[in-house]
Amino acid sequence: MKLSTRNQLAGTVVSVTTGEAMAVVKIRLDGGQILTSSVTKEAAEDLELAEGSAVTALIKSTEVALAVE
Amino acid sequence: MKLSTRNQLAGTVVSVTTGEAMAVVKIRLDGGQILTSSVTKEAAEDLELAEGSAVTALIKSTEVALAVE
Amino acid sequence: MKLSTRNQLAGTVVSVTTGEAMAVVKIRLDGGQILTSSVTKEAAEDLELAEGSAVTALIKSTEVALAVE
Amino acid sequence: MKLSTRNQLAGTVVSVTTGEAMAVVKIRLDGGQILTSSVTKEAAEDLELAEGSAVTALIKSTEVALAVE
Amino acid sequence: MKLSTRNQLAGTVVSVTTGEAMAVVKIRLDGGQILTSSVTKEAAEDLELAEGSAVTALIKSTEVALAVE
Amino acid sequence: MKLSTRNQLAGTVVSVTTGEAMAVVKIRLDGGQILTSSVTKEAAEDLELAEGSAVTALIKSTEVALAVE
Repeated sequence: MKLSTRNQLAGTVVSVTTGEAMAVVKIRLDGGQILTSSVTKEAAEDLELAEGSAVTALIKSTEVALAVE
Repeated sequence: MKLSTRNQLAGTVVSVTTGEAMAVVKIRLDGGQILTSSVTKEAAEDLELAEGSAVTALIKSTEVALAVE
Repeated sequence: MKLSTRNQLAGTVVSVTTGEAMAVVKIRLDGGQILTSSVTKEAAEDLELAEGSAVTALIKSTEVALAVE
Repeated sequence: MKLSTRNQLAGTVVSVTTGEAMAVVKIRLDGGQILTSSVTKEAAEDLELAEGSAVTALIKSTEVALAVE
Repeated sequence: MKLSTRNQLAGTVVSVTTGEAMAVVKIRLDGGQILTSSVTKEAAEDLELAEGSAVTALIKSTEVALAVE
Repeated sequence: MKLSTRNQLAGTVVSVTTGEAMAVVKIRLDGGQILTSSVTKEAAEDLELAEGSAVTALIKSTEVALAVE
């Protein structure tokens, strides 16, 4: 499967915090940075996300803002 | 300034493609990955984005989807 | 590849309108509805999107608002 | 009211899962597909969403990514 | 029509910049602030947006980030 | 720090509703309107958001839809 989503960053799940509707997933990117993702609780369960899971973070380019000093 | 935006990834602008309304900016993250951002043409001009500009990519956690193999 | 993205709607590309930075893609869903997607010009080229291409539209649940009469 | 939002898909609420801050709503589109929406708990209550509610899912075109095989 | 979209800000169109695929619309909110919206060119035409048009800006709560000094 | 994010609206926090994964924050804009933001619980804690906190709401232009009567 090939995606229009320009940003695909490989990493490993560090933690999953699950609420009743949503879940927050922390990922350590292969470059070392920590990334946070908010998905539905259902998605976290469906993908069986847990500490150590290998994942790819997908981010649409329209969602990336930029800052300069 | 401190942001609620969980994901703040440092990098350097590689290219800026400017249309009449929007601009697409390529950034090389410090970890080596390439990131793509779509902003308004006005924002790209306002931040004076050009090859070599030091930037921080800002991504809200609700915009990060995950994939597993 | 399995995605956290809850909404995956199969369809066929009806038209691609390409600007200098962005492209707008019209898709006819298998259910008959027309869907519009805005992606980077680069993504449209990379996926070789053209009239008749079979595609799946991917929509994160946090991006779906609801209206009632 | 006329919306810039290009994607307006009619359907019926199948389930509402409510957390303390957010709610996840499942909708069966008229074409048969299931759609998931994450809204605030307040919005779900304000619209009185419940199984059987007729709704229209609203999705901005910039939020629609595409995949090809 | 009642929307789950929590943020509905009334204003008046100040300018419309149209590209080949997308359009950028500037709105003066009734509170005086200027808001920028990026929509498809098609949406701008469909809503006949022009200087002086009365509009309501619609922003999903999951799209609102916060900053503190 | 200068942001590509076009929409930066100053206000004051009115309430914070915290779930296990996410938090919903109500802000009164300086123009008087109420704005709702959904952020991670972690972000709300990290920014020490509470009734009376001075904040700036940040909204990317691609997230602003428009409605006309």
